[in-house]
Amino acid sequence: MGNQDCIFCKIAAGDIPCSKVFENDSVIAFLDISPLSEGHTLVIPKAHFEQFDHCPSELLADIAVCTGKIASAVVLGLQCEGYNVLCNNGAAAGQEVNHVHFHVIPRDSGDAVFTQWPAKQYSDGQAEMVLNKILKNL
Amino acid sequence: MGNQDCIFCKIAAGDIPCSKVFENDSVIAFLDISPLSEGHTLVIPKAHFEQFDHCPSELLADIAVCTGKIASAVVLGLQCEGYNVLCNNGAAAGQEVNHVHFHVIPRDSGDAVFTQWPAKQYSDGQAEMVLNKILKNL
Repeated sequence: MGNQDCIFCKIAAGDIPCSKVFENDSVIAFLDISPLSEGHTLVIPKAHFEQFDHCPSELLADIAVCTGKIASAVVLGLQCEGYNVLCNNGAAAGQEVNHVHFHVIPRDSGDAVFTQWPAKQYSDGQAEMVLNKILKNL
Repeated sequence: MGNQDCIFCKIAAGDIPCSKVFENDSVIAFLDISPLSEGHTLVIPKAHFEQFDHCPSELLADIAVCTGKIASAVVLGLQCEGYNVLCNNGAAAGQEVNHVHFHVIPRDSGDAVFTQWPAKQYSDGQAEMVLNKILKNL
């Protein structure tokens, strides 16, 4: 179950200490040691899965429910205005540890944590083409 | 259940058309019309809840499982290198429609969709203080 080169497996096993926020049989959450904001928390499965869509459904459900409870506590505890739940999958998406993790990132107006949202528009017919590519694999 | 001023409630009810990716009894997914990248998909509950941590556990679980399946199809269909799953909660966190939604954002190296990660460090004792604030509310 554990991957011996994985720092998050070591944290889950208790071999590396963490500032533990939450733990149940399959999920553990702890403060990110390089936070984007005060209270930035990581929620991970104890078992080693690389990405969101690699996790079994039951585990994904458990992580999501735990993340909801943790987000509530982060908002109440830090009295922040909002928060992001973010899961980066693959190096191209900014994933730095190859053990799936959900970031809970407390946010306040003007904190400049994320400022980009470079939205685009589809050209005529492009959305249908893209949609069909997805539907063929669903 | 529906909020008459909410554009996502109208999409969920079929009153506003969408490029539908997926639908079950409680969840619907569709292409974002202002995508950050080709195939950028939104996964939402049909019922109106504003934020991630406002959703009942069963619904959160359902959304997460659906999002996993959709992410797999997006990766296969678009042949992208990675993807972000992102849920912005509150205006301070970048939420623009007050009906909780999970972004599935296909990513490729060098696409410049997100480039910021302004990580910080805790000062001595600060992490313990922050941790205690969260634990008191969990």
